[in-house]
Amino acid sequence: MVERITLYSAYVCPYAHRAELALKESGLDYKRFEIDLQNKPEWYAPKVNPASKVPAIAYGGPDVDPASPSPESTKLAESLVLIEFVNDLITPTGKSLLPADPVKRANARFFIEAFQSKFGPVWYSSLFKGEHPTTILPALDALVGLLPADEGSYAVGKEWSLADAAVTPFLARAFTSLKHDIGAYDAGQGKAVWERIQNEPKYERLRKYYALVTSRESFKSTYVEDVIIETFKKRTESIRTERAANKV
Amino acid sequence: MVERITLYSAYVCPYAHRAELALKESGLDYKRFEIDLQNKPEWYAPKVNPASKVPAIAYGGPDVDPASPSPESTKLAESLVLIEFVNDLITPTGKSLLPADPVKRANARFFIEAFQSKFGPVWYSSLFKGEHPTTILPALDALVGLLPADEGSYAVGKEWSLADAAVTPFLARAFTSLKHDIGAYDAGQGKAVWERIQNEPKYERLRKYYALVTSRESFKSTYVEDVIIETFKKRTESIRTERAANKV
Repeated sequence: MVERITLYSAYVCPYAHRAELALKESGLDYKRFEIDLQNKPEWYAPKVNPASKVPAIAYGGPDVDPASPSPESTKLAESLVLIEFVNDLITPTGKSLLPADPVKRANARFFIEAFQSKFGPVWYSSLFKGEHPTTILPALDALVGLLPADEGSYAVGKEWSLADAAVTPFLARAFTSLKHDIGAYDAGQGKAVWERIQNEPKYERLRKYYALVTSRESFKSTYVEDVIIETFKKRTESIRTERAANKV
Repeated sequence: MVERITLYSAYVCPYAHRAELALKESGLDYKRFEIDLQNKPEWYAPKVNPASKVPAIAYGGPDVDPASPSPESTKLAESLVLIEFVNDLITPTGKSLLPADPVKRANARFFIEAFQSKFGPVWYSSLFKGEHPTTILPALDALVGLLPADEGSYAVGKEWSLADAAVTPFLARAFTSLKHDIGAYDAGQGKAVWERIQNEPKYERLRKYYALVTSRESFKSTYVEDVIIETFKKRTESIRTERAANKV
């Protein structure tokens, strides 16, 4: 029997969003508690996640206020661990967020690993360190190469899977920030890259994929774009200004 | 039904060793093909793994010479993807290399992630860049913190699991190289750290764990220490010499 679930999350965090998407798609009930990453509650590290990161899940134990976590619940962390955990919880019911075929399951996990290792570092460098955001395009090219040719399909087939849970939060935050030209890079560079992604024929498959994953209720009910825009702006504006000043 | 498996591996590589341990423990039949990482066969990247790394698995297809991979087999890569794949292959038979309980499965995956992120970078820096090998000790302290207190237990319980498959290859290579003082660090530093691991009471749990995982047939039949010693020596000797020369 599935026990009580409390998700500690943060709208801004793509890792946390992975766990939230998996939970939404699982159909399991859960409480959600927003952690302010710039001002974490004192109890969070000692009582929930010693690494002080989101996402984390408190599993089982009594029905408590998430701000007063019970020592009786099991605390789990790491986004990829958590999405597999959510899937393991529903597997006995016959539902699954991974394909049944072992090869396709491997494809899904490979999809996550390949995207993460290629996209993560370059995106982070463009957003927060000011690298030109064209540096993320090779990772998007690689993603296009991994997507099934059929336009109606998700990361590894006709069904939404953990691979989509892992990738969508990063794509969404990247696309939102490029579109609004938010990042430590020079003004205008984000928008220019966004235009390329919107218009170049080679990204058509990516656009279709993105439209598909973001049309799902699980995404729409968990992606709070205003918060992303505001937070990324706040965190990158001063870096951009400083970089521009150093150039003059 | 499980199809034909060919593992492309390299004795020296801890990532490849993960897949080999999982295969041995699974009881599945497989062919093993050694890839010389310093002199990879021309066909390897185009026909098996575009990333040109080990491990990789060719799954299914006709019975061919591994040096002439068939286009009909499915090629899979990435060590953690492969060990989950091996487990997924045997799951229908009732066997498992992960605990049944979702929480314990999450513990196993977290164990892998926590060890890898803490140990991987510092070990690599000490072995190949000459950082003092004491830098790996905090990662070993963390590992001790994650191990169940019971001395007879594996990473997450009484049964060997994928968590042990993922961690053992790194511990073994680290311990072998420290013991033989092989690394880019200064002469003597490896042995000194090895003595600490052998003698300090706080590493007793780790020593017991290491003795347990390395006593298994799966380990003994796949760990070729001589090759590790020779290869690591060859790859680090010149770096050590150069570092020493630059100091004078």
